[in-house]
Amino acid sequence: MATLLHIDSALNRENSVSRAVTASFRQGWEAEHPDGTVVYRDLAVNPVPHIDTVSYALGGVPEDQQDDAQRAAFAAREQLIQELEQADAVLIGAPLYNYTIPSTLKAWIDHVIVVGRTSAGDQGTAAGTPTTVVASRGGSYAAGTPQEGNDFAVPYLKHALGTVLGLETEFIVPELTLARVVPAMAELIDTADASAAAAHEAASNRGRALAGKLAPASV
Amino acid sequence: MATLLHIDSALNRENSVSRAVTASFRQGWEAEHPDGTVVYRDLAVNPVPHIDTVSYALGGVPEDQQDDAQRAAFAAREQLIQELEQADAVLIGAPLYNYTIPSTLKAWIDHVIVVGRTSAGDQGTAAGTPTTVVASRGGSYAAGTPQEGNDFAVPYLKHALGTVLGLETEFIVPELTLARVVPAMAELIDTADASAAAAHEAASNRGRALAGKLAPASV
Repeated sequence: MATLLHIDSALNRENSVSRAVTASFRQGWEAEHPDGTVVYRDLAVNPVPHIDTVSYALGGVPEDQQDDAQRAAFAAREQLIQELEQADAVLIGAPLYNYTIPSTLKAWIDHVIVVGRTSAGDQGTAAGTPTTVVASRGGSYAAGTPQEGNDFAVPYLKHALGTVLGLETEFIVPELTLARVVPAMAELIDTADASAAAAHEAASNRGRALAGKLAPASV
Repeated sequence: MATLLHIDSALNRENSVSRAVTASFRQGWEAEHPDGTVVYRDLAVNPVPHIDTVSYALGGVPEDQQDDAQRAAFAAREQLIQELEQADAVLIGAPLYNYTIPSTLKAWIDHVIVVGRTSAGDQGTAAGTPTTVVASRGGSYAAGTPQEGNDFAVPYLKHALGTVLGLETEFIVPELTLARVVPAMAELIDTADASAAAAHEAASNRGRALAGKLAPASV
C-alpha cells in the first residue's frame, strides 16, 4: 500500500482553486488505490508554527540534555519530517500570496529541511518522491504578460523542493483564478476556465498514474 | 522628529550578523537624531501570526458587522500597517533561511500589503519611504559562485517592498556569515570578515545620512 501526503494551504476554503485541483488529484489517486493511505495537512486550518529559537535547534541537543520545551518542539518537527520521509507521493496546494508562497508553507519547509538528513539533494531521506505542486495564482505570470517574472513561488519551490530536498517535482499552474471575482478581469473568464479545466485534468490523471505506478499490487 | 521602524527577524540572538548590522544602522541613526523615535519589532521573539481566514478579510467587513475575533485580528493588522505608514525610514533584518525570507517576515508582509491602500506602487500609503534591508546569508550567492541564482530573498523583497509597496529600497548584503561556524568554510573567514565590515560601515553611514536628511532640524 502506498501513502500520499496531501498538503493544502489556501485561506479560501469554499472557492479555492488550489484546493479544488488537489482534490481532483486525490480523487484520481483514491479511485486507483482505494486501500492506500492519505495523510492530510491543512495549513490554513491548523498552521504549523513559525520555526523558532527552540525548534530551530533540532538535532543539535543530545536527548538527555533536552528540556520539556525542546522535547515538544523537536517531536512536532519530527512528525512533519517523518510524514515527508514516509510518503510515497506528495501533493501540495500552493496558492500565490503576495507574489510567493504562503508563510504557512514556508514554515512547513523550514520544519522539514534538515541539513544532512532531508536536505541533501538526491541523497536526502525523501529524495525521489514524486511531488505534485498545484501553484494557483489570481493573475497570469506567463511569458509575455505584464506580470512575467513576478512569480517568486514556482522558481523557489523548484529549488527548495526539487534541488534541496531532491523531490521529483511536477507543477500544475491554474492561472487567472480571480477572473470570476474581479470585475475588471471579466474578459479573462474563458481563459481562466480553460486553465482550471486543464489543471483538473492534469491533476486527476497524475493522481491515477502515480497510484497505479506506486501501488500496482492493489489494482 | 523622525520615526524609524526597525524590524529584526533572525532566530540567532547572540551571533546574528543581520542583527549586528541593523544595530550599526540604528546607532548611526540615533547618533545623528537622538530625539527621534524608534519603533522596534523583533519577529523572532514576538512573531506576528500567519495571516489567517479571519485577518485576511481586513477591509472587507463593515465595522458594525464585525465579530470579536474579526475586530481583534483587524486591529492587530492595523497596528502593523500604521507602523509602516507612519515610519519616515524602515530598517529590516532579513537573514536568508532555506533560500528565501523567514516565514515570520513573509507573515509581516502579508499583514501590511493591503490592495488599494499600501499596495499601489508609487501611489501606496507608504510609498517613497527609504527602506534599508540587511539581507545576510550564510554562504555567497554572488555572480560566478556555485549558488548564483539560489537567493530568492533579495529579488522577492525588491518586488514586494519596492514595486508593490513603493518603498525606496536599498540592500546591504553581508555574505558568508557561516564561515566562522562551519569548519569547511574556514578559508573564507577573511572574505566573510571583509563583507561584514563593509556591511557595518554601509549601515552606519546610511543610518546617519537618513537621520540627517529626515530630521535636519534636530541636528
